Amino acid sequence: MRSGERPVSTLFDQIGLLYTGDPGREEIENAALVVDGGRVVWVGPAGGAPDADERVDVDGRCVIPGFVDSHAHLVFAGDRTAEFAARMSGASYTAGGIRTTVAATRAATDVRLAARTAALVAEMQAQGTTTVEIKSGYGLTVEDERRCLEIAQAFTEETTYLGAHVVPPDASSADDYVRTVTGEMLEACAPYAKWIDVFCERGAFDADQTREILLAGTKAGLLPRIHANQLGNGPGVRIAAEVGAASADHCTHLTAEDVWALSSSGVVATLLPGAEFSTRSPYPDARRLLDAGVTVALATDCNPGSSFTSSMPFCVALAVREMRMTPLEAIRAATYGGARALRRGDIGTLRVGSRGDLVILDAPAYVHLAYRPGVPLVAQVWKEGRRLV
Amino acid sequence: MRSGERPVSTLFDQIGLLYTGDPGREEIENAALVVDGGRVVWVGPAGGAPDADERVDVDGRCVIPGFVDSHAHLVFAGDRTAEFAARMSGASYTAGGIRTTVAATRAATDVRLAARTAALVAEMQAQGTTTVEIKSGYGLTVEDERRCLEIAQAFTEETTYLGAHVVPPDASSADDYVRTVTGEMLEACAPYAKWIDVFCERGAFDADQTREILLAGTKAGLLPRIHANQLGNGPGVRIAAEVGAASADHCTHLTAEDVWALSSSGVVATLLPGAEFSTRSPYPDARRLLDAGVTVALATDCNPGSSFTSSMPFCVALAVREMRMTPLEAIRAATYGGARALRRGDIGTLRVGSRGDLVILDAPAYVHLAYRPGVPLVAQVWKEGRRLV
Ligand SMILES: [Zn+2]
Ligand SMILES: [Zn+2]
Repeated sequence: MRSGERPVSTLFDQIGLLYTGDPGREEIENAALVVDGGRVVWVGPAGGAPDADERVDVDGRCVIPGFVDSHAHLVFAGDRTAEFAARMSGASYTAGGIRTTVAATRAATDVRLAARTAALVAEMQAQGTTTVEIKSGYGLTVEDERRCLEIAQAFTEETTYLGAHVVPPDASSADDYVRTVTGEMLEACAPYAKWIDVFCERGAFDADQTREILLAGTKAGLLPRIHANQLGNGPGVRIAAEVGAASADHCTHLTAEDVWALSSSGVVATLLPGAEFSTRSPYPDARRLLDAGVTVALATDCNPGSSFTSSMPFCVALAVREMRMTPLEAIRAATYGGARALRRGDIGTLRVGSRGDLVILDAPAYVHLAYRPGVPLVAQVWKEGRRLV
Repeated sequence: MRSGERPVSTLFDQIGLLYTGDPGREEIENAALVVDGGRVVWVGPAGGAPDADERVDVDGRCVIPGFVDSHAHLVFAGDRTAEFAARMSGASYTAGGIRTTVAATRAATDVRLAARTAALVAEMQAQGTTTVEIKSGYGLTVEDERRCLEIAQAFTEETTYLGAHVVPPDASSADDYVRTVTGEMLEACAPYAKWIDVFCERGAFDADQTREILLAGTKAGLLPRIHANQLGNGPGVRIAAEVGAASADHCTHLTAEDVWALSSSGVVATLLPGAEFSTRSPYPDARRLLDAGVTVALATDCNPGSSFTSSMPFCVALAVREMRMTPLEAIRAATYGGARALRRGDIGTLRVGSRGDLVILDAPAYVHLAYRPGVPLVAQVWKEGRRLV
């Protein structure tokens, strides 16, 4: 197939194991799948599919939905390699390091920011990610937040306004900055964003500020999600439940009340083990969440400060090793869970009607993402029925 | 350059950071390097190199020596995915699972074994490994050990006879099996091996058996190395010092006496964090070893039971995160350290006279191997001056 050309239909045949992400029929051995017009139109047994314009012989390997990375910070400039190296020698992670990236991002041209974002998106695609959420949050002026979201929107429909990432050092006061975030900055950013997010944490934004910012965003037509309970206990998770956020992200420190808030509200808990890996912090207790019936998503949190991985396979391996998720729970969280965290029904699954976003693994089963950690196992990546990788 | 063709000389110019592995001059910024006839012939400042037939613009990226993976088990057949999944759900790792692979390996044809080994070697090369040690140990009959080593020898000069991996279930007694390992099997295997290795562990071989096997191997012209102190304290490390082994591998459980034995003898401690990752075990205490002046190597232990990663970058990331090695100590262990563990002076470094084995990273510094865990950062791989990847 010539690249860029969209075939009418493609048959993926001889799939050794198909992970569908469909709760009713989650795994099918010896399967086939047809994508037509960018959508899955048929799923069934190998060799039994209707004819299609193109045929891909999966040759017994495993097919999974493209990863849905529902939490990433990809629009930034600057270098924090030295900060990472220092932390690995004993320095601790605080929200303060964000300010380094803010200064570099403000100084960078649109072209440079877009080029860097494009490189990270391509890197993610090569590792099987077909949908990525991209946040602003390194501009922190009206115009810098706006242009970061404009750049994000060139790469994804899942854009998130995170003016409330941290109070910038040049703000006259926190209250003053919150007024900007909920006023002029929101007005400038809303046309480019689907979501509004707040970093609710000691050193960033407190409970009242978080509520105020999310409420203003909601009024402007944005949907809420929260950075919650990363560095310590706090009100973030409970506010997520209170405002009906799609997701509470991090969830590293949870009380029994927090777990109850998540399970009773249906808010997705998005776990970001790359951040715990790269800040040498204790991992979230995924088992406790799963056992309480909470929907769990896995995402990279890709950002230059606390988690510079772009690799969903790496997050799956950490989820199994460090958070005691089973391989099935981990792959589900990295596909279906991510889609739930973005309130998307068309991605993260491979059933009739799903978008034709899929990954062929160089492995007979998705278990290998944990069993063979660090090994590049992504053989092919297809998005809306077109081959990307 | 056409693939397969060997240029007389290649200039690698505009290297942002060159990690040489040479203790006298370990890192050079803005460097260039010339490889001629498969060897490094010149190292110096960017733009200052003599002319060469070919020029590679490294464009500010980092160059490191090809990884030296000094511990791998690549000749095997069979599938242990289910065992891994069960272990991740709570079952513990014992040496017993090896027997599953032994049965499948004995049943496999030479062609099938060689094809699988080739695939793993290619996978390693794509991740920057230019030298890999390959052990036997899944045959455990005279002929199966011999043919596994014959296959290994087709891929590397660093072949290791590991008839003493575990006592096979069909041996009439352990003593009887040791007689075979030191007698008929050794005779058949010695022509194909450089090294002799013993799995010295409860459930495998005890101190007296280990000494006897290594002594017999030494008499047959092989050099000793040991699987030591993986699952608990034991005599392996002290025997390594006593017999002058090149390396004691695993070193997960060490007494003060063991650390002293390593530092005073000069035996390399080869750490295999992929095994601890995949068996959910505590990691070796690399800092204690480094602080005692022990030479540390990092290797994958690639095998289907306890560590099915082939990724040296993943091991570097684990070394920094989990074993508190600095990024410099980790890259040194993965290159220079591995070469020391194989008693090789021509690899694991990039100084004049070194073999032209090098990796261009898609990153400005080797720190990124830890800073960007799981991300495929290997851009180009060259071996003896020829491009492999
Ligand atoms: Zn984040
Ligand atoms: Zn081993």
